[in-house]
Amino acid sequence: MRISARNQIKGTVIEVTKGATTSHVRVDIGNGTIVTSSITNEAVDDLGIKAKGQVTVVIKASDVMIAVD
Amino acid sequence: MRISARNQIKGTVIEVTKGATTSHVRVDIGNGTIVTSSITNEAVDDLGIKAKGQVTVVIKASDVMIAVD
Amino acid sequence: MRISARNQIKGTVIEVTKGATTSHVRVDIGNGTIVTSSITNEAVDDLGIKAKGQVTVVIKASDVMIAVD
Amino acid sequence: MRISARNQIKGTVIEVTKGATTSHVRVDIGNGTIVTSSITNEAVDDLGIKAKGQVTVVIKASDVMIAVD
Amino acid sequence: MRISARNQIKGTVIEVTKGATTSHVRVDIGNGTIVTSSITNEAVDDLGIKAKGQVTVVIKASDVMIAVD
Amino acid sequence: MRISARNQIKGTVIEVTKGATTSHVRVDIGNGTIVTSSITNEAVDDLGIKAKGQVTVVIKASDVMIAVD
Repeated sequence: MRISARNQIKGTVIEVTKGATTSHVRVDIGNGTIVTSSITNEAVDDLGIKAKGQVTVVIKASDVMIAVD
Repeated sequence: MRISARNQIKGTVIEVTKGATTSHVRVDIGNGTIVTSSITNEAVDDLGIKAKGQVTVVIKASDVMIAVD
Repeated sequence: MRISARNQIKGTVIEVTKGATTSHVRVDIGNGTIVTSSITNEAVDDLGIKAKGQVTVVIKASDVMIAVD
Repeated sequence: MRISARNQIKGTVIEVTKGATTSHVRVDIGNGTIVTSSITNEAVDDLGIKAKGQVTVVIKASDVMIAVD
Repeated sequence: MRISARNQIKGTVIEVTKGATTSHVRVDIGNGTIVTSSITNEAVDDLGIKAKGQVTVVIKASDVMIAVD
Repeated sequence: MRISARNQIKGTVIEVTKGATTSHVRVDIGNGTIVTSSITNEAVDDLGIKAKGQVTVVIKASDVMIAVD
């Protein structure tokens, strides 16, 4: 499956924190950069997301903001 | 200003493509990774976003998805 | 690729309207329901999205609202 | 009230799962398709959302992605 | 129709700027505050949104960030 | 830091409700209007967000919908 979302970055899961319905997944995308994702617990279970797993971080372009100093 | 969005990654603008109301900004965040952002033309003008500018890409954790092969 | 987004619905593209930077894609998901998607022109070209194409509509659960009468 | 969000699909709630602050609501929109929504507990209480209730799923076009095989 | 989105603020449209596919609508919500919305041209036409019109700005809680100085 | 998000409204925190992973923050932006934000617990801790604190509510234009009666 290929998806329209313009941002797809490979990385390694470093931590999954499960809440009551929502999990936070932290992914090391290399170069010292960690990306945090907030997804459903159901997605974590369904995709078998766990620490050390290889994943792709996916972000729609319209959800990316730009800041300047 | 510090913002709640968990993902804030520094990079260099490589291209700004302006549409009628919406611009696409491509940012090199290092390690060979390009992030594409879709923001208003007004924001591009207001912040003076242009090629070679140093910026920070900002993404809310709830807008980040995870994919597996 | 499998993605964390909880909503993935198969359908047929009925129309692609390209703007300066942003396209609107209308997808028939069956049962008389049309879903409208706003994505980058780049994604439309990259994925070869066009009328009559078979696609999957993908929506993150946190982007779905509920209304009642 | 009529809203700008392009996607408004009628359905029947099949399950509400409440977390500490966030609920997941599953809605049958017909044709065998289930849509999952992640909203605040407060919204669930305020609108009286519960299993078997008739609701409308509402999604902004800019939150809809397209995938191809 | 009542919707799960927690933020619904009444205001007056002060300007509609139409692009090729996407419009920007500026709404005065009182107290000197202007809110900018980016929606489809189709929504603008369908709802008859125009300057001086009374509208409600609707924002899902998961799309609101918090910043501190 | 200045950010591309078009909507930045100053206010005072009136309540922080922490869940297992996700917090809800209610902000009084004046004129009798309360804005609700759903962010990570981590962000609440990191930015020291608490009742009576002065904050800025930040919302991307593409996340703002318009409704009419």
